[in-house]
This record gives sequence, C-alpha cells and structure tokens, in this order.
Amino acid sequence: MYRTHTCGELRIENQGTQVTLAGWVQRVRNLGGMTFVDLRDRYGITQLVFDENTNPTVKSKVDELGREYVIQALGIVRERSSKNKNIPTGDIEIEVSGLNILNASLVPPFTIEDESDGGDDIRMKYRYLDLRRNPVRNTLILRAKMAHAVRSYLNSNDFIETETPVLIKSTPEGARDFVVPSRMNPGEFYALPQSPQQLKQLLMVAGFDRYYQIVKCFRDEDLRADRQPEFTQIDCEMSFVEQEDVLNMFEGLTRYLFNEIKGVEISEFPRMPYAEATKNYGSDKPDIRFGMQIKELTGLVKGKGFQVFDDAEFIGGICAEGCAEYTRKQLDELTNWVKRPQIGAKGMVYVKYNTDGSLKSSVDKFYSPEELAKWAEVFGAKPGDLMLILSGPKNAMLKAIGELRLEMGNQLGLRDKNVFKPLWVVDFPLLEWDEETKRFYAMHHPFTSPKPEDIPLLETDPGAVRANAYDLVINGVEIGGGSVRIFDKELQARMFNLLGFTPEQAEYQFGFLMNAFKYGAPPHAGIAFGFDRLTSMFAGLDSIRDTIAFPKNNSGRDVMMDCPSVISNEQLDELQLKIDLKEK
Amino acid sequence: MYRTHTCGELRIENQGTQVTLAGWVQRVRNLGGMTFVDLRDRYGITQLVFDENTNPTVKSKVDELGREYVIQALGIVRERSSKNKNIPTGDIEIEVSGLNILNASLVPPFTIEDESDGGDDIRMKYRYLDLRRNPVRNTLILRAKMAHAVRSYLNSNDFIETETPVLIKSTPEGARDFVVPSRMNPGEFYALPQSPQQLKQLLMVAGFDRYYQIVKCFRDEDLRADRQPEFTQIDCEMSFVEQEDVLNMFEGLTRYLFNEIKGVEISEFPRMPYAEATKNYGSDKPDIRFGMQIKELTGLVKGKGFQVFDDAEFIGGICAEGCAEYTRKQLDELTNWVKRPQIGAKGMVYVKYNTDGSLKSSVDKFYSPEELAKWAEVFGAKPGDLMLILSGPKNAMLKAIGELRLEMGNQLGLRDKNVFKPLWVVDFPLLEWDEETKRFYAMHHPFTSPKPEDIPLLETDPGAVRANAYDLVINGVEIGGGSVRIFDKELQARMFNLLGFTPEQAEYQFGFLMNAFKYGAPPHAGIAFGFDRLTSMFAGLDSIRDTIAFPKNNSGRDVMMDCPSVISNEQLDELQLKIDLKEK
Repeated sequence: MYRTHTCGELRIENQGTQVTLAGWVQRVRNLGGMTFVDLRDRYGITQLVFDENTNPTVKSKVDELGREYVIQALGIVRERSSKNKNIPTGDIEIEVSGLNILNASLVPPFTIEDESDGGDDIRMKYRYLDLRRNPVRNTLILRAKMAHAVRSYLNSNDFIETETPVLIKSTPEGARDFVVPSRMNPGEFYALPQSPQQLKQLLMVAGFDRYYQIVKCFRDEDLRADRQPEFTQIDCEMSFVEQEDVLNMFEGLTRYLFNEIKGVEISEFPRMPYAEATKNYGSDKPDIRFGMQIKELTGLVKGKGFQVFDDAEFIGGICAEGCAEYTRKQLDELTNWVKRPQIGAKGMVYVKYNTDGSLKSSVDKFYSPEELAKWAEVFGAKPGDLMLILSGPKNAMLKAIGELRLEMGNQLGLRDKNVFKPLWVVDFPLLEWDEETKRFYAMHHPFTSPKPEDIPLLETDPGAVRANAYDLVINGVEIGGGSVRIFDKELQARMFNLLGFTPEQAEYQFGFLMNAFKYGAPPHAGIAFGFDRLTSMFAGLDSIRDTIAFPKNNSGRDVMMDCPSVISNEQLDELQLKIDLKEK
Repeated sequence: MYRTHTCGELRIENQGTQVTLAGWVQRVRNLGGMTFVDLRDRYGITQLVFDENTNPTVKSKVDELGREYVIQALGIVRERSSKNKNIPTGDIEIEVSGLNILNASLVPPFTIEDESDGGDDIRMKYRYLDLRRNPVRNTLILRAKMAHAVRSYLNSNDFIETETPVLIKSTPEGARDFVVPSRMNPGEFYALPQSPQQLKQLLMVAGFDRYYQIVKCFRDEDLRADRQPEFTQIDCEMSFVEQEDVLNMFEGLTRYLFNEIKGVEISEFPRMPYAEATKNYGSDKPDIRFGMQIKELTGLVKGKGFQVFDDAEFIGGICAEGCAEYTRKQLDELTNWVKRPQIGAKGMVYVKYNTDGSLKSSVDKFYSPEELAKWAEVFGAKPGDLMLILSGPKNAMLKAIGELRLEMGNQLGLRDKNVFKPLWVVDFPLLEWDEETKRFYAMHHPFTSPKPEDIPLLETDPGAVRANAYDLVINGVEIGGGSVRIFDKELQARMFNLLGFTPEQAEYQFGFLMNAFKYGAPPHAGIAFGFDRLTSMFAGLDSIRDTIAFPKNNSGRDVMMDCPSVISNEQLDELQLKIDLKEK
C-alpha cells in the first residue's frame, strides 16, 4: 500500500499519528516561509504543510509540484491553527517529513474543480480528467449505490438475476438494431439487444418465476438530445401475476430507492388512466408536482362570433395562479413561445382575473364579462389568476397546453427538483395508428396483452382497445414501462395479424418465442426502467450523459477513444465483408 | 396473483388452509378412484389429489391434463396418508376443489427431470424447457447468489461498480475483436470489448481508486471446447496498491465466496512462483489437492548406456503412491496415454517399489537395484509405490509429466470435487517468445509491470524478466489473473518497443491511455476472474455451458434463436456494407 489512510479520513483524534497519504495535488499555496498543498483523492482533501522545519530535500521537491501531480507524503497529523469548517478533515493538517513524486502531470486542459472552466467537448475528450471532478464522480457513486439498492430489493423478493446474451438474433421491429458480423458463419449477423424482451419471456416459460437484470441495451437511432446508442435498463419479469401485482412490487422498489438513497418518503403513488392523463395534463407523462390541470371550454365559447374558436375542434387552457399581473411583454413572450413549431399553437387567448374582481381578456370584443366569468368558473380561477387558452385540433392542442403548463410550472417555481411525485399511468391504448404507413403499430410491443374486456374490439375497433400496459412516471419523466404479456398463442397470432405480420414473417422473427409458447407458458408480466434516466433524476441532473462513465456524443462517437474507427482490411477480409460507401 | 402460495412452501402447519397454487404438471398418476398430480414451480412440488369427492367438472378437467400443462388449483391443505420424506412439502397434499387450465403443452421433446433423456443438441434447441430442470435452474440460481456475494464483498471494501461501454475501439492485439459497423459513421466500426482493461485503467487515472464490474466480454475465437464467444468477467482494479495488497484483497474475496456460498473454510492459500509451479507440477495452474510432485533424475541416470535417457535433455517423473501392483495392462495403457499427441511423450519408464522391498523396472537391463534405490530416494518412494518416468525436451516433458500426474490423480481419486485448494501463482515471465513470428509477446498484456529488480534486464535478457503478474488457480483451473500495471509512460514506451510496436502503432492503438498517463496516473493494479468458470467450479460441473442461461454452441450459434442469421438488404444498405463471400 502506498498509503496508511485516505485523504478523507483523518480527524482531530488522529493528532500525533504518523501517516502516509497518496493522491493528487489539488493546489499549492506558497506563502513564503510556508507552503500548503491540498492533497486530493476520491475520499476527500487533506492539507499538507511544509515550513521552515521541513527537511530541505523535501522542500525542494515541493517546488516541483504542479496541479494534478501524483504524490505520496509521509508525516505527522497535527491540529490546524486556522480550521476549515467546510471539509471533514478541516481540523487537521499533515506536517510532512517525506515526499515522493509518484507521477508528474501536464497542466490539465481545464480546471479540476466542482465548477470547471471546460466546455462539454473538451470534458468528453479528457473524460478521465472530468471524472476527477467531485460532481461527476459523485453521480457515478450514486449510480453504483442505486444499482446495489435495486438488487437488494429484488433479491429479497426472490428475483433471480440472470444474464441474457448480448449476441442475439436481429428482429427488425421497433428501432434499428446494431449488428455484428459473424466470422464463423460468413454472411450472417448477430444483433445487439434493444432489450432482452423475448429472452426474459422465455425465462418465464422456463419457470424462473421472477427475473431481473441490470443490463446494457442498444439502439441504432439518430441520436436526439439525451439519447445514447447504449443505455442501461433495470429489466424485470414475473410469472403468475396480474397487473396490480406488478404495480405493487415496483411501487415498492421505487419507494425503497427513494427512502434508501435520498431519505425521501413517498406519500401518494396514484394510478392514472392514460385517457385522464392526456385530458388533464396533455401528456402521458404528467408532472403532478403541481395542479394547473387543463380545462376544456369548447362547448362554452363557440358561436359567439369569434372565428378562431368557432373553427376550432378544441378550445381549452390552464389557469396560472397569481399571474394576473403579467405584463403585456410577458404575455407576448408566452404567445411567441406557444407559436414555436415545437409547440405549434396559432396564437393564445388570455383572461386576467384582476384582484379587483374584474376580468380582462384579449377577446373582450367577442365575450362579455359574464361569459368570461363562466370561463373562470370552469378554471376554478380566483382574483389574481391568469387564464391562458389555446384552440385548434384536439390532440395537438392538449399536447400544446400540456407544454404551456410545464412552462408556467417552471416560471412559477412549481417544479422543485427536490420534490418527487411518482405515479403509474395505466390503460394505454394497445395500438397506435400510423398515418404514413396506414397501419397499426404496437404502442409498447407486440407481446403486450389487451385488457380482457376489450379483446372483442380487436377486429372491430382496434384503436379503442386498451392494453394492460403501464408506465412509471416521476416528475413528468417516463422512468419505466411494461405490460402484462400475451401468453396464449392464439391471441398472439391475432396480434401479429393486426400488426400486419404474415404468419411467415411472425415465424421468422418471433418463431422461437411462439414455439416456446406451445410448451406451457405461464401468465406473466414485466417492466423495464431506464437506469440512466432514473440516476439522472436522483442526481438532479437534466441530462443522462454524466450518469455514464464514458458516454458517446450525438454522432455516436466516443471522442476520448476516438471510435468508431476504421478497421484493417484483414479484419474485413476475415468477415467476408466489403465497405460500399455511397456518394453523398 | 394467480396463487396464494408457491409449490414449495406448504407444510403440515398449513393443514386446513384454503390455498391457490399455480405451476406445471410434473406428472399425473391415475389410480382408478384417485388421481394424483404433482404440481411444480421453481420453489418445489406439491401433490394435488382428486378423488371420489371431487366435483365432477373439476374431475373431467383432470383427465385433460398432460405433462407441462400450466394449471391453477384451488383447494384445502390436508395431511397425506403416505408421506414423502424426500421433499419438504411431502407431509401434505391439496384436496382440490377448483381447477383452471391456464395453458396446454405439447409433449416436451425430452423429460423434464433431474436426469433427462435429452441429448445436448435438443436440450439447447429447447433451452427454455431444459432450464425447467432442477440442476440447470439451480446452477443459475447459484450463479445469481455468487454475483450477489461478490458485490457485497467488493461494495463493503469501497469498490465502485462502474459500467464501461460495450461499443469501444478495436485494438487488434490479443484475440480477434467482434466488430459493429456504425451507420452514423459509414465505413467505421466499433469493437466489443475483450475486456474493459484500458477503460478500468482510465478509471484509476480518473481517481476512482477502486473499481469493479461483473461484465460481459467478447472474443471472436475459434471455439475450443468450453469456450463461449461472450463470457462474463468479475473485473477489478485498485489504486495506490502493490501486488501483495491485491492478493490479500482477492484472497479475501475467494475465502468469502467459499464460506458464504458453500460453507467451506479455506485453510491455506499459498503463493507459488511460476518457476516452482512448472518445476514441481509441470503447469502454471497446479492442482494442489494432492502431492505427487515432479522429481528430476537427469543427473542421476545419464551415462549408464540407456540411449533414450542419455539423449534426453530432461528425465523426470512422479511417484504414484500404492500403485506397485499396477498390471502389465494398466502400465501399457498409461504408456499409450502418454504417447498420445496431446501429451507427446515417446515412451514411459516405470519402476515398481514392491511391498517386499525389491525394485522392478522396465529398464533393469541398464540400472542396478542400487541405482534404482537412489531413484526411489529422489522420489521419496516407499514399498508399494510406482514411479513413472518420462524423458525428452525439458519444457515438453515437464508439461507431459504434469498431465500424467493429473491422470494418476484421477485414477487414484485424489481430485475430489468437494475439496478446494486455491493458490496464487506469481512471478510470471513478462514476455513469451514466439518462434513463428520471431518476436516477444506480452504474456498477460502490454500494460503489465515488470518486477522493479528485473527492469535492467528488459533490453539485455527480455525473456528472463519476471512480471508483477499473478493468477488465482483453484484445483488446477485458472480462475483469475491480473497484474500490477505500468503507470509510467516512459516504461510503457519501452514495453511497446520491446513488443515490436512502432510509436505510431502504439499511439494509434493505445493513444488515449498513453495520453491519460501524462496527466497524473496513480500506481494501480488489478485482476479479472472468469465468472462462468468460477460458477462451474462451485456447481461441480465440468463445463461452463450450463452456468449460462442461453449459451452458444461450438460454431458460435444460438440454436434456439437460430442466430446469427442473414439480415435484410436494407440493413446492409444503411450500413453501407456488402457481403463478399469467398469461394470455399
């Protein structure tokens, strides 16, 4: 061992002890007769002190030290004259009698401080230096703690952690697969799993009863902000359960994690049907840290000569508490905000419920104060509030008002990162219609079970069929999702048919699962959580990038390793592949 | 929930309780008036009974049941008249009043019993049925328990479990990489990690201090028996440590696992230099469950007119205790055994130390009883023992005698699967000379540190340089290995030079690690364990295949999923790749 103690553990009780520490030089302060060196390791910072009594050989070495040098220091723990209350080792310092420079360091390209002067690109290129910074390292330590807590909970509930293969069969449904050419089987490819969905279902057929895995998954998608080509899932499946059992089990996990990791007691854990979520929040992942629910005015406001409303399929909005004093400028900004293409509203109507009880709107020409008062009633508005109203196609407007609601939540400080409001969104539609390809797609995946009472609608009104599918949503973010699976091969065949698979296609892509279902498949259901996102929520981060030790950028590159990269002709040759670059 | 209890938990205390069970039909015994059904789930087997009092609707359903049907049964727990002492639920049975067939099953292609009638190929094709068998499932449960114990130990020793990426840079040193074409970066490829070696070293540069991960690794090798293209490593790295610290930490892990999982206390945990292991055991992974060490006779036996010995570089052998009574036939068989190409001896000389004290050898023509008595002394032989002697090139013969030793260990029952003898083999040579390419290769990998006292030999006598490298060997199987790493960029450059890398090649392949070393790399060392092999040893299996839920066969195929497989032209097109199959 190069050390007797870490840089985080010495206290006033250790006074007089001879110790050896090792770590990185955080900073050197030369005050003439005395030199202080802050020595840093993962566990903390300890102050080294060199003064007129220090052996001259040692002192000459101190002059060589630069930031991020790796050193070993031998000395005696002594009480500091001026204590630092901000760090746990702040009562002591080390009077150094021996010093070893273990490794020198170039001047790092950015400062290794909690707030660094490095931009994102340089931080990623020198990720090993970025990871020295407390906030980044602490996020990864948090992640490790969370993984451990997840395992503790699931192990204690009889789940078997089982590794599923990474080299699997390509099943081009859903996102694009990453593929891996097989040298031993030329012309053939493995795929990297988008999720172990079928394998975990096979484990249920195999009688494993309860399975989980914290597992890497892969999607070759054009990366939107905050997507990674490889990401980590907490993947779970249970047999002989119904939806409610799964919800209870994983509500339990969620509560356990919040309690164990953040010391937070979750009080309520509501279940909200999809239809209610979209109606009241304009989203299937409602942020319920605050109210401000969407209200509909359609019936109330039509036919009064206001063409915009008269032509709209849907008119509705939200009531922002205490915002009646918003200025013209603020209202114009909001109007511009909802008119951005991402939101897509044509305009915005407002009604101020002034503190004097009067109502002032942008459509006073068309609506009398009495009429506006009725609107206020619908919104449950009180003096001092501001109503914001959008109109247009129903689904688009619900979504737009939902976004406006979140924006107002931000403006009013209603989205506190230290408040956590989880809920289950349930009863999702089974199928989604795609206008472009004129077919239905599975909203979750083709193995999701319809609600038994809706099965008769499968052929008559597929769009109305609800699924036994559920999402875990926390603070407006989808953290996990799952479903009760189809375990009956007849029903599964009907589903494939609905999704436009020929029996041959279904056999080719899912044959091994369908075959397995012939040998006694139990009822089963499961769920998967996005572990990167869950970690970023626990860490209070806005992005998943810093929850990952070595993330990739938006072009799927690791700029530190400089990969992907070209491979040798020998490698290509062995794989019996040729690169066939297209003209751009 | 489809059940109130599992099939493994009901006891005589539950008598009279109304319960619902669910599971698979293990067998149906129709004894005329009574029918017994053994209902199985992961947790056990419970007997269901149907008799003259059973509701006729229920009874008619019983007649439909076949093996592996999935059913749900409602009934009352009652005491059995004839108890089964072999199973924990053997005191009770369920008097069934309600029965639901949840899913039918085809007749499985092999029996779902501890000893199945299915061959390997069919078991793999229907792996989901194979996994229903107790021994297979129990191995995977054991694996999960071991993973949990590994994590508990390492977490409690301040290791941070950190995920490293699966899509990394191809560095064609060592085995062949699996590669993944990048669609977003056409013509470029990721590689799947053969191990996270460089990434874990970067985590040390990043100050993570202690890292571990239970992680999938990938090697595109022609599969020898008991190799898998994807396998799992327990991968660890520590900073500010010396070799002895690593050995102690992971000796601790090994002891903890044996104790926690198998209730076995490991007494001795020796450290043996590589030179001693090869000299005494003819192997760098000695099985020390038994003695029978190799003795050398070279000096003693030369110059007596026996041409075979006179021409040999090395003469030596082993003494098999109590085997003096081996028959001519047995000795001939052993001689043929050592002459097989895998062993490679030209012949075998034996000396019987008869119980009457006389010595009888196959070379009595050349050696007097007095001379043979001196051999016996070297071997420490006593009356009743058998000495077996091979001669030829030194290294080849040490290896051959080592193999013969293991064979005799088998024949004498000295290799008990329930006895565990771990040891560290240390002081490996740093480099291995390859006759074919006329260059040195790193025996571990290019980052392994030479022993400081041997560094001066690097340029003068590279083959003699010992490494700070170590292997964990248990019962003759290499379970893990690691090394103290080079953390000085000058020494690393010398190593690359020795290994025949130009500075440009080194920069291209390892540049990001070399760059990192410029910014203050701490001294560090690590180790990786083969988790599949460790599990197979704990499970008492001879192969790793059944430690893996969904293994691949020797051609790298998953016969259940039927992969690798062809992918669509659209997929190839998007990747800008062409298949370019060679004539065979």
